[in-house]
Parts: sequence; structure tokens; C-alpha cells
Amino acid sequence: MKKLNKITALAFLVITFLSCFEEKESASAVASNSESETTQEHPKLILTAQGVKNIRAQLGSIPIFDKTLEKVKAEVDAEIVAGIEVPIPKDYSGGYTHSRHKQNWFILQKAGVLYQILDDEKYAKYVKDMLMQYEALYKTLPLHPKTRSYARGKLFWQCLNDSNWLVYVSQAYDCIYNYLSEEERNTLETNLFRPFADHISIGSPQFYQRVHNHSTWGNAAVGMIGLVMNDEELIDRALYGIKDLKLDANKKDDDGGFLNKDGKAGFLANIEEPFSPDGYYNEGPYYQRYAMYPFLVFAEGLHNVKPELKIFEYKDGVLLKSINALLNLSDADGDFFPLNDGQKGMSYYNGSLVTAVDISYHYGNQDPGLLSIAKEQNQVLLDDSGLAVALGIKNGKEKPFNKKSINLSDGPKGAQGGVGILRNKDIELVFKYASQGSSHGHYDKLSYSLYENGEEVIQDYGLARFVNIEQKGGGNYLKENKTWAKQTIAHNTVTQNEVSHYGGKYDIGSQHHPELQYYNFDNEDIQVVSAKENNAYPGTEMLRTMALLSDNDFEKPFMLDIMKVTSKKANQYDFPYYYFGQVIQTNFEYKTPETLKPLGPRNGYQHLFVESMANAKNENSKFTWMNNQKFYTLTTLTNNKDELLFTRIGANDPEFNLRRDPGLLLRRKNTKNTIFVSVIETHGSYSPITESAVNSKSNMSELKVVYNSEDYTAIKLTHVNGKVQLFITVNRETSKEKKHNLKIDNKNYEWSGSYYFE
Amino acid sequence: MKKLNKITALAFLVITFLSCFEEKESASAVASNSESETTQEHPKLILTAQGVKNIRAQLGSIPIFDKTLEKVKAEVDAEIVAGIEVPIPKDYSGGYTHSRHKQNWFILQKAGVLYQILDDEKYAKYVKDMLMQYEALYKTLPLHPKTRSYARGKLFWQCLNDSNWLVYVSQAYDCIYNYLSEEERNTLETNLFRPFADHISIGSPQFYQRVHNHSTWGNAAVGMIGLVMNDEELIDRALYGIKDLKLDANKKDDDGGFLNKDGKAGFLANIEEPFSPDGYYNEGPYYQRYAMYPFLVFAEGLHNVKPELKIFEYKDGVLLKSINALLNLSDADGDFFPLNDGQKGMSYYNGSLVTAVDISYHYGNQDPGLLSIAKEQNQVLLDDSGLAVALGIKNGKEKPFNKKSINLSDGPKGAQGGVGILRNKDIELVFKYASQGSSHGHYDKLSYSLYENGEEVIQDYGLARFVNIEQKGGGNYLKENKTWAKQTIAHNTVTQNEVSHYGGKYDIGSQHHPELQYYNFDNEDIQVVSAKENNAYPGTEMLRTMALLSDNDFEKPFMLDIMKVTSKKANQYDFPYYYFGQVIQTNFEYKTPETLKPLGPRNGYQHLFVESMANAKNENSKFTWMNNQKFYTLTTLTNNKDELLFTRIGANDPEFNLRRDPGLLLRRKNTKNTIFVSVIETHGSYSPITESAVNSKSNMSELKVVYNSEDYTAIKLTHVNGKVQLFITVNRETSKEKKHNLKIDNKNYEWSGSYYFE
Repeated sequence: MKKLNKITALAFLVITFLSCFEEKESASAVASNSESETTQEHPKLILTAQGVKNIRAQLGSIPIFDKTLEKVKAEVDAEIVAGIEVPIPKDYSGGYTHSRHKQNWFILQKAGVLYQILDDEKYAKYVKDMLMQYEALYKTLPLHPKTRSYARGKLFWQCLNDSNWLVYVSQAYDCIYNYLSEEERNTLETNLFRPFADHISIGSPQFYQRVHNHSTWGNAAVGMIGLVMNDEELIDRALYGIKDLKLDANKKDDDGGFLNKDGKAGFLANIEEPFSPDGYYNEGPYYQRYAMYPFLVFAEGLHNVKPELKIFEYKDGVLLKSINALLNLSDADGDFFPLNDGQKGMSYYNGSLVTAVDISYHYGNQDPGLLSIAKEQNQVLLDDSGLAVALGIKNGKEKPFNKKSINLSDGPKGAQGGVGILRNKDIELVFKYASQGSSHGHYDKLSYSLYENGEEVIQDYGLARFVNIEQKGGGNYLKENKTWAKQTIAHNTVTQNEVSHYGGKYDIGSQHHPELQYYNFDNEDIQVVSAKENNAYPGTEMLRTMALLSDNDFEKPFMLDIMKVTSKKANQYDFPYYYFGQVIQTNFEYKTPETLKPLGPRNGYQHLFVESMANAKNENSKFTWMNNQKFYTLTTLTNNKDELLFTRIGANDPEFNLRRDPGLLLRRKNTKNTIFVSVIETHGSYSPITESAVNSKSNMSELKVVYNSEDYTAIKLTHVNGKVQLFITVNRETSKEKKHNLKIDNKNYEWSGSYYFE
Repeated sequence: MKKLNKITALAFLVITFLSCFEEKESASAVASNSESETTQEHPKLILTAQGVKNIRAQLGSIPIFDKTLEKVKAEVDAEIVAGIEVPIPKDYSGGYTHSRHKQNWFILQKAGVLYQILDDEKYAKYVKDMLMQYEALYKTLPLHPKTRSYARGKLFWQCLNDSNWLVYVSQAYDCIYNYLSEEERNTLETNLFRPFADHISIGSPQFYQRVHNHSTWGNAAVGMIGLVMNDEELIDRALYGIKDLKLDANKKDDDGGFLNKDGKAGFLANIEEPFSPDGYYNEGPYYQRYAMYPFLVFAEGLHNVKPELKIFEYKDGVLLKSINALLNLSDADGDFFPLNDGQKGMSYYNGSLVTAVDISYHYGNQDPGLLSIAKEQNQVLLDDSGLAVALGIKNGKEKPFNKKSINLSDGPKGAQGGVGILRNKDIELVFKYASQGSSHGHYDKLSYSLYENGEEVIQDYGLARFVNIEQKGGGNYLKENKTWAKQTIAHNTVTQNEVSHYGGKYDIGSQHHPELQYYNFDNEDIQVVSAKENNAYPGTEMLRTMALLSDNDFEKPFMLDIMKVTSKKANQYDFPYYYFGQVIQTNFEYKTPETLKPLGPRNGYQHLFVESMANAKNENSKFTWMNNQKFYTLTTLTNNKDELLFTRIGANDPEFNLRRDPGLLLRRKNTKNTIFVSVIETHGSYSPITESAVNSKSNMSELKVVYNSEDYTAIKLTHVNGKVQLFITVNRETSKEKKHNLKIDNKNYEWSGSYYFE
């Protein structure tokens, strides 16, 4: 009821506000018509002259657009009252000068757009005045005083942020281009924009001349100002990189990524390389979200100014496909799965996703599902695409955006592994068999995370960083990102002999990738994905098959996990489960030590305290835990030499940079070939109000490997009520058509395709 | 919008459902009229013949009542379809037989009520059939096979649960009394109810003959069945205890509480003793909530059957006052503050609070604030009081229930300390200076907890128990409740020489209590409460003054805490802060050890790991942390001998019964008299979506003690912007009228009352 009242109140405000400038709107329409000869060229990036006309004609009758406009206007008006501040650059991220210049770029862009839409000169004047202050400042600036970046900016400590600034400010400049005199434009272009574009490109080739999200920002910045200034040289530099420049192929950036290994550069290469044909971005969704904005606004500008480039059709329309991929890489709450270096909580409510959704709707095929996300975002772009979305919503065209199971290939040609997301009811299983993911990649081949209704059941740690919280290492990557978050043991996959995949070496990791065996989502109740990795540990093959299975004996779909390891020599295998919450019950007896010690000396092991130790005594080890008033049970195959360790993150963490999250680690020593088989059930609930526990126990009685060869692995699942199920996964000939015939315990099983389950 | 649709759908359902038995209603009205001579005596406990008539007349036009009825009907109908199950008793709490008998008592009560309201014999028959099965079973039953209780029941492992059963089942019996033949009634009364009532009273005096929430249930059970059976002897036994019985005054129960120290017993004594005149229940809100149900339903029955007793006026109307106190002992979400043994998450959405709110409204002064809580509870009692509430809501009488600052005295005469709750905007400070709180009390004199908008900022641990989760110690108290949760170091107060208050001895704690110095809530921006404790450590006096202060320099009200300790000898004082979340910044340098060791050997110290150690180097030590995307800063007075230890709960916890929660501990060694002065600010926010940190730093620059004597303590607070404030608390003559005159740094301060702040 409260919500409704708010909405009503807001609607009233919007109406009141909009009726105030209806008159003005028609007046300005006349004005812009009479000026049509001179104005036809600007704006042209995200707004067009025709687009502005359309927007003005609809204002007041497109609720979500009107509301966004009202909010933006209130924000900019407050800034105008507060006055312009253009401080001398000094701080890292999170510090005052950083935040102020960042705030300025947003406000400039917004003020420019307001000038176009509302035709009120105060906005143009505000943009002009601030740009002139930037012009006065910029020409005096040396490199930014903070020295930590591999590519220092001038306004900011890193060129990346300078590029952010220019991507936004180009739009502001475009919006007031016609408002400025030629002399003013000359001043700005000569002293500010051109040298600015040069510094982040030819002045910083180690930043600009790469395939990397940083460079995408750089390319877009140079390209967008180039489009506004009608500077073909800058546009070319944006699209194709700095002409005739070759960088040292062995140099690396701050994050340990190669600066430019294969010589590719420029905006088009940045589309070509990191996106797979399915639209998966190789650094993962968190950085895709970050890169999306420059990809899409520059593309929008190119579409408007250089339609002959057909940028939205480039590489089979991958830019628009990538938006669909990105939306599918989010959980039930819209939060992106934190693959690689991803900060948890980033979601499709981020502003760059407003851009993505609106552009995808407008320049794509008007998917009505996108409108429902736009509605949840509760804002639109104040441009042509935002108008299209607002009209779509107004006309009631939206439908739910149903996320289904999806397999996203990785690699420029889609042949470098991928990410499989299995979905059934409230359960989401994210299986990562992707390639290294550039410098933001983690050493976590064949790892997974598990979600229930947007909550983490088995977590991926994410990154070790407090983005933009100045007190924590200036808001930058913390050293624990390398020593913990990237390491294999921080992930839900196998670590062999306490060494990370590829030896934790980026150079090696970048040469390899897992390979898809098969995926099959044909039956909603039996969703399976299978992949293998042969290079993480030379001489060892890992083949993991993960399934989300439904059965009437279980309250919810459960996860079946089969990790088959084949090695030429005996190894130690560590297999962790990063759960959340409190231990409810185990069927193994553990001992808790008086003092807590780190699990090992390096490769992430130094960050894990051992909270208890156990020797597995049963063929199935079971562990039930409770988190957020729900129960979860792991059932996993063990032998009597296996160890089970409860761990907690936080050892050797001298600045409390890591979360104290728990884990259960299954350790199998001195073993060549082996198989890890687990089921995770989510079940029941606890109410602290009624104090009743419902369905607090597992419904899985036993897991057993009944067949295991190079060709097939078969698992027998016995439910608590005695019912037996058999899951067979095909290890070699995985085509959908292939017929199989297998005898297990004197019974013949015949089926077609890559798995059998009954 | 979703919510609205649901509501509409529900309303439709209700209407459809109700229109189905409108006809029936008038038919039954005739029937009951014609039977009026025989029905006049029953029902008479929570329903009355007249009440039933009123309800039937209103059905279909009282939405919240109709909705509750619909839900209850669906539940009971499903149980009737499933069939009756009365298993042979076997399990502890959480086990099958326990849960089944518990379920039965609820269903019996509901089915009885449905019979009355809907006049459908199937419900009466169901109740009769199940009661007959209980009759057949009960007469064969020995004591319950589980032996852990100090007072074993027959249906359940403890008499407490047998009493729960009878409190509910008496109501069911009352509802179908007239449906049964005299012979059937004789059978039930002779073989089931009378021996049942005897077993929990004269058969279990150690349980029955006490002042304790257990006994309240016992008294109510005996009294209610006595009212139904019209058995004056049972009613007397309920009201006044077992005649002429004296128990050993030194015996204790399972929880270490005295069984019957001063010989008092019976329902009236259970009202007299544990409730203070303000309605505070000495065991705290969690147990008050538990005890409220028998207090109130038996009171309702007494009101209906024995109006001459004027039960709701007893002890100046304390039963109704206690409901108001209880509602005020909840946070912004309605969750009760977990004082003493309280399980977190218990809230006024619990069913017993529906009883409390409805009865309070009906038999009290029809406070419209209660209607808003009833509306949130979204259900009412299906009786006369529920009807009154439903009509109140229907007629739009509800107003918000505004929780304000409140001081609740403890002790039968209100002279044994108390609980002060300071509230301003979203901040709630709970200051506990109450007495021991019976066997569920903790050794936490002058402790506090701090809340922001229902979230814990500085936590009280609560209990160490997973109520009704069978896998965790049968759902009962865990041994860590005694070794950790009750100990002083588990609370936000001073521990001297690593020993708990009163030596952690219940016998000693029960003899003493802190004393109120003053409280003052006159000015919303300056709320203060002050109390002292002289017996927790003989020879040491603790005087704590806590304030919630508002000032324009601060985003939100901040907490000021002055703990003045005066001792005859040198001691070690430990002063913890149980915060939540992640360390953001400190102004002291700490070292983190390679291995984690317990802080001490006993008294709760064995459960704290030391995660880092520091020596305070500044006169003010500062600590900023982040939790749930908000920032918090502690500023606390230190000297250069003070130690600061980051701790984590969980050492010596062999079954993972404790939460791994963090703390910061300020340790002052070898000191006689001292003062701890702290400010806690809640400030700013972090958004992982925009990745921006707002107001992430403290606005308090310095705290300084500028005066400290037996009479006054004065603290100078310097804000970051240079503004200075002075807070003076009066330590001796604390009356509101008293005039004071004090010279500090050559400046005269004159004021009246117990504090000065400017």
C-alpha cells in the first residue's frame, strides 16, 4: 500500500513538472526547426536531431522517461546551485579529487542531454563553463602525481579513468556543440580534447594498444571525441588502434596481464577478440558490465554517424548478443555471477546495464523481455533508445525476462571452453570451464557455484578488493586478490598437490582452456553439462560432469557432480565446498584443534585456517548445514583414507582484507586415478518465529560408482525411501545421436546421446 | 504491483469461500438458538456463547478474521483428510513423536474453534475421535522414555510440553463439550484430563510449584481444564499452587535455576513475582513471549468464567501493561531484543503475540496502535478478542504503533534495576541493568546492544541453542550456552580479571541487581540512561551512562558511552565491542598471529580466538568497519598501556555450536580506577552497484575526559570540523530538580538535572 502511495505521489509530481514546460517545448520545436540547417550535424552521438524532436513531442506522456528526466534534472539543478568544482588532481580512487572529477563527468553528460531535451540554455552554459575550467586546468597538468598505475592519466591516477571522463564528456560536448562559438570550440579542441585524446592513446600505448577492457574505454573515448570533432584520424585510431605501432609482446600490466601479446588493437579488435560468438566476454560478466558502456555508446555514435560501418551487425551482431549473454549471467536478483575478478552485488541495476538494455531493445529486435528489466531498472537512457523503451513500456508490451539454462562458449571463435548455467526452479548452477579470462582471470578450471533464488549456496569467492573504498588500499586490488582469490584452492574445483592450475602462471593459463564434452538442456528435469581439462596439471586429466536433477522424492532440484581425475602419477587432490552458515550435522567424527593453523604455506593455502580434521569412515560422507533459515546437505563419496577438513578463510591476512567464510575440504592423498561424486540438496526451512524445522534432513541415502571406464561413468543414487536411480555419463563419444549399450551388474542399458538417467 | 495482485486474488478467494457458507451460517444460527439452553455454559474459555453468536453474525464482512478463518479451515481440513495420528511417545524436541503431538495440540484447538464458528459437526467429531485416541493411549503411558528432564512428562519428554498440550486441548474440549455425551465426557475426564492435570502438578511439583515460565504453563493447563470441567479444586491449584506443599529451597532445575527458593507458587504468584509494575518480565522478552500465551488465555478464561476475580486488573493491570512492554522490547522489524537466553529472530509475528495483541486490544483500552501490529501480523484470534480487532481494522481505526524511548523497571516492585531503550530515528540502544532474570539470565550487568533500523550494529550474542533443531543437541540448550553465552565476556560490558559478574554464580547473581541512577528522554536529541552496579565484583563499582545524541555534524544519532570504574585494588578490565562485518580502518597498528589461540582458559575466554593484537598508541583509538553496505566508527579513549585485540568467537567449540562472530576487545591492565569513554557513529553507505562509498569516515575528531570526580564526569567531544561539545553526567545527586554548578578549565557550567550537554 505504501508503495502504491509513493507511486501515485511520484506520478503526480511528474505530471506537474512536465506540464510546466509543455509550452516551452513547442516554442523550442519552432526554434530548432528554424535552425535546422545549422543543427543537423549535432547532436549525433547518442542523441540525434530527429531523436530530440521525437523526445520533445512525447514528453509528459512517457512515464519512465519522464521520471528519469525529472530525477536527472533535479540532480543537475542541485549541482548547478552547488557550483562548479574542478580541483587539481591529487588522489587515488575514493579520494576527493578523484570522486569530484568522476562526479563531473556524469553531470556534464547529463547537463548536455538536458540542454537538448529541455532546450534550456542554463544547462549549455553550465557545460561550457565547466569545460572551460577543464581547458584552463588541463593545459597546465603534468602526469597525475600518484605513481601506481602502469599508465598514469592526468585528471586521474590512471588513463582508464581519464578515458571514462572523455567518453562521457564527448557526449556533453556534442550536445552543446552548436551552442558554442567556433572560437570556443577551437579553444576546447586545441587545448583540451585533442591533447586529452592523444595522451590516452599515443601518449599511453601500453594502455591504449591492447585487447582489454581498459583499451575499449580508451578506444571509445578517442573515437567519440573524434566523431564530435569530425576528426577522421582520431576515428581511425579508435577503430583500428595506433597506426604502425608495435608493442613489446612480453610486457605486462599492473594485474599481470600481457600488454599486447599478438599485436591486435583498436575498437574492432576489442569486439573481435574478447567476445565469443555467443556474446560471452572473456573477462567475465563483472568486467563485461564495465566494458559494455563504451562498447555500446561508441557503437551508438558510430551507428548514427557512420551507418555504413554497420557496427551492430559486426561479427554476426555480437554486441547485441553479448547483452543477452550478460543478462543471463545474473542470478535471480539480477546480480552478476562473480566469475574471475568480480565484485559481488554488481547487478543489472547498474547504469551501464540501463544503456545495454535500452540499446539492445532499440537497435535489436525489440525483445519484450527487455522491457520488464527496464521497468525493474526504473530508468531509461535520455536518448532515442530510452524513448523506444519508454514507449514500449507505456504501450504495455513488456513480458517477463525468463532466464533459462544456457551454455555460452568462450573464445573469439567459441572454441575455448565456456560457461554453462543450469537452471531449474529456484536453483542455478554455474559451471565455469572458460579460458583464462585475460588478466582478470582466476585459476579455476571446471569450477562451479550454486545458487538458490539469488542466494549463494556454494560460493565463488569473487575478488579481494573493496572497489572505491579508499581506506582499503585506495579502493584497488588488494594483494590477497593474487594470493587468495585467483588461486585454485579458493574455488570449488580440484587442486592437485597444493599447486594452482597452470602453476598459477598467467602465461601458461593463457595458452590453454578446458573443452566442452557436451551439454544437454532438453529435459528440464535432467540438465547436464560436461567438460574436461588436460593442461591445468600436465599428465592429469580432469573430466567434470555436473547435473541439476529433479525427482519427486526431493523437495527441490539437486546437484549431481562427477569429477573424474586420471593421472600418470600419484597425487594429492583437494576438493573444497565453500558453503555458508552453520554446521548442523555430519556423519563423520571430527576433532577441533585448540589452536588454528594455516593449511599450507602458499598458493592460497596460507589463507585457510583448519578448524577441524576428520578421517572419513563411511563410503558416503554427509554434511548438513543451515544458512538463512534453510537446510543444505552434501553427500559425497569417500574412502577410509580420505580426510575431511573444516576450513575458514582468514589466515595470513594482516589487514583483514578477506572475509572469514567457511569451507569443507575433502582431501585424497597419494592417489592416481580417482573420482569425486557429490550430491548437494537444498531442503526444508527453519522459522525462528514458529521455531519449527521442516524437512531438515537429507533424502539421499547413498551414492555409489557402479561403473567407471574411459567410456562411461555410472552412479547409483539410492534415496532414503529406497528408490534407486542410475545416472550414466558418456566420457568419450558424446554426440547426441550416438547409441550406447552398457551392461552393469548384469543389466543392459541402452540409450542414445550423452547421458542416461532413470 | 505483484503484491497488489496477490491481495486482490486473495480477497476474491475469501469472498468466494465465505459466500459458500453464508447459507449455512443462518441455518446454524437457528440451530444454536434452539439449543441455547444447553449451550449456555460452553464454550466459555476463549469463546463464549454470545461471542460465537457475534462472530457468526459478522462472518464474511471482517476481512482479517475471514482470512484467518479460511487459512485455519484449510489447515484443519487437510489434517482431517490426512487422518489422525497419535503415536507412542519416544522422541526429544524436533523428533517425530514430539512434533506430531505438538501438531495435534494446535489442530485440536483449531478444530474445536472451527466447530463453534462454522457449526460443522465434522470438526467436533474429529476432536472427539482424537481425544478418544489420546484417552486410550494416555492411560497406558509410563513416564516418557527420554530421561534428560528434571520433570518428565508422559506425552513429551518434559512436563512443560505436556502442559502446552493441555492448555490448547482444554480449549478444544471446551468447544465440543456440549457435543459429547455425559458418558464420553466422564471417560475423557477420568482417564485423560484429570490424571493429566495431576501428573503435571502434584505428580511433578518440582515443575509446577515454582515462579517460572514453566510453571505458568503448568498452572494455566491445570486451571483451564479445571474451568472446563468446573473443578474448583483444580482451579484453586492453578491459582494458588499445590496446597500445603513445601519444596526444598536449595534444589535446582536443568538450567541451574532454583526450583522454589521462597515457597511461592501458582498462577497469581507467577503474575506477582516476575512482572515489574512496568510490565517487564524478569526473564526477558523471549521468555515473556513464551509465557504470554498461558498468562493471557488462562486470564481470558478466568475473565469469562470468574469475572469476580478481575484478573486483568490484578496487580494494577500488569498483564495488559506487560504486552505494551513486550512490544516495546522489539526492534524496528518487530524482532525481540535477545536479552538473556533469547533466540534471535523471535518476533511479534509469533502466534502468542497475536494472542497478546488481540487480548490487549479487547480487554484493554482499544489502543489503535495495536491494530496496526495486528494488521502486520495478518491474522487474529478466532475468538471474541480477534473479532474486536477485526472490526477495529475494518472500521479504519488503526494508527501506527510508535515505539519511543522507554525505561522498564525490573523486579516485583520495580526496584531491581531495569532495561532502558533509547530511540532516535533509526537508532535503538538497549541498555540492560536488569536483575539476574531467573535461570535464563546472563551475567551481563550494565551491558548494551545497538541497532540501526532493525539491524544489529553491536550485538548481544543471544543464546547458544538451535531451538527444535533435533540434530543440534535435540534442540535443547547446548553446553556453550553456559560456557559462552551466559558469561560476561560474551557481552558488551566490563569483565574484571577474566571472571564473570557475581563469579558467574546464579545464587549470588540472584541476590543482587544494578541500580538506576537516572534516565531522561525529555529531549529527543539527548537521550540518556545511567545505572550502577556495586556487587558484580565486590570492591568495584561500575557506573555506566549511555546516551543517544543528535547533532547536525552527524548524519545519524550517535552513541556516547561512559563507563566509570572505581575499585579498591588494581585489576584487569576487558571491554569488548561485538560488531559485525569487515574491518575497514584503524588508527592503531595491529599484528596478526600466524596461529590463532584462545584468549584465556575459562569463563567464556576459552571461546575467543585472538585474530590480532595492538598496543594503543593514541589517546583516542579509532576503528571503522562496514556491514551490510553501511559504515560504522568506534572512537574510544585509550592510554598507551591499553591493548586492542580483534577476536573471533569459535575456539573450543568441538561441535560448531557457536557463530564465528568478530569482536574488538579493549584491555586495560593493572588499573584501579578508570573510565571507558566511547562514541559509536553509524554513517554513510556503500553501493556495490554504483561502487560508490558515501560518508565513509568518522565525523568525531577527539574524545577527552575534562573532569572526573565522585560527583561529575565531563567529556569533551571535538568534531572533525572543529566544533566542540561538552557532556557532563551527574554521578551522585541525580534528581531532575537538583541544581549544579561546576567549573571546568576556568569556565562555569550551571544546570539543573542529571546531565548537561551543549
